[in-house]
Amino acid sequence: MIIPAKTVERLIVYRRLLGRGKRVNVFSHELGQLANVTAVQVRRDLMTAGFSGSPRRGYVVADLMDRLTEILDRPEGHNAALVGVGNLGLSLLSYFSVRHDRIKVAAAFDADPAKVCRVVSGCRCYDVRELPARAAELDISIGIIAVPAGSAQAAADALVEAGIKGILNFAPVPLRTPPEVLVEQVDIMRALEKVAHFAKRQREE
Amino acid sequence: MIIPAKTVERLIVYRRLLGRGKRVNVFSHELGQLANVTAVQVRRDLMTAGFSGSPRRGYVVADLMDRLTEILDRPEGHNAALVGVGNLGLSLLSYFSVRHDRIKVAAAFDADPAKVCRVVSGCRCYDVRELPARAAELDISIGIIAVPAGSAQAAADALVEAGIKGILNFAPVPLRTPPEVLVEQVDIMRALEKVAHFAKRQREE
Repeated sequence: MIIPAKTVERLIVYRRLLGRGKRVNVFSHELGQLANVTAVQVRRDLMTAGFSGSPRRGYVVADLMDRLTEILDRPEGHNAALVGVGNLGLSLLSYFSVRHDRIKVAAAFDADPAKVCRVVSGCRCYDVRELPARAAELDISIGIIAVPAGSAQAAADALVEAGIKGILNFAPVPLRTPPEVLVEQVDIMRALEKVAHFAKRQREE
Repeated sequence: MIIPAKTVERLIVYRRLLGRGKRVNVFSHELGQLANVTAVQVRRDLMTAGFSGSPRRGYVVADLMDRLTEILDRPEGHNAALVGVGNLGLSLLSYFSVRHDRIKVAAAFDADPAKVCRVVSGCRCYDVRELPARAAELDISIGIIAVPAGSAQAAADALVEAGIKGILNFAPVPLRTPPEVLVEQVDIMRALEKVAHFAKRQREE
């Protein structure tokens, strides 16, 4: 089953919101209110996920959580490789190391010899030239790019060559990758500048 | 002039890409290639920004940069307030402190007395109850939320009460704010889980 990207994003949010509560049942309008979407959107998304509720009792939360996990996750979890152990990379290692039980940053890579062989937040740092070998050895399925803009395409190329199909890109630059690879860009600086622009606009009005 | 949010995002990217090169002129198809959008999209965006090029010589980069800066920035820059000085907040302070010349994190806030009065990456940390007073004193126009999900709405309420119109939200939860406030959410965990889902799907095919 191919679920559209935007639906996947909302399913992730629904699961997270349901995981925080202790409810047995939930209605689409309640879940919609928590997630800032309409009840119709919730019902459509959960139908796409192959899950249906009853008009009288809503959705059974435990069953819904199981179904979402089945769709979203791999039972054995994911190992990720972080490329770039600078300021941002170190922050991400520390952030990810405590947050997630199903996705683990299993190895970090950097071109700087001074960083190689260090262990940061429980994660060993290797020379970036070792990426293909380590990716196979550690069964890595996700790449995280935290290098400066000028090195990001090379990092993406190395990850693609290592057979990785999902890349989370924190570098502030678009990447060229084959169509079967999903690149999700998190552009923190663009988000900050966008907020600044709107704040300025509000002051001008 | 009200420029749509998606156009603002692209203008930010165009300016960043042009700032890296040393070109005198640029054609829409060249800028489009760098930014991963079509030449038509570039021309439409720059027309929305009130800027036009010539078919023969393209756009004059220096003039275009000036125009984009005029639209996107406030000449006096922006002061931002960071709410939440935990793991993520500390990382963001360090990341933002070296990256931006026009947007400065001028103050940080936390509810934990152990964090108040500390200076981190050149930024002083205050009690979150001081937010309205400090926001006025320091001319703060942007809020950055880096607290856990459970405290995010309270942080947003405090920022809105302090008259702040632009909020960058790193907490993994939707926020309720008045319509004149722009909230831009950066959901790092959702992005990671989305990439994981696609990586799993590619393996299953």
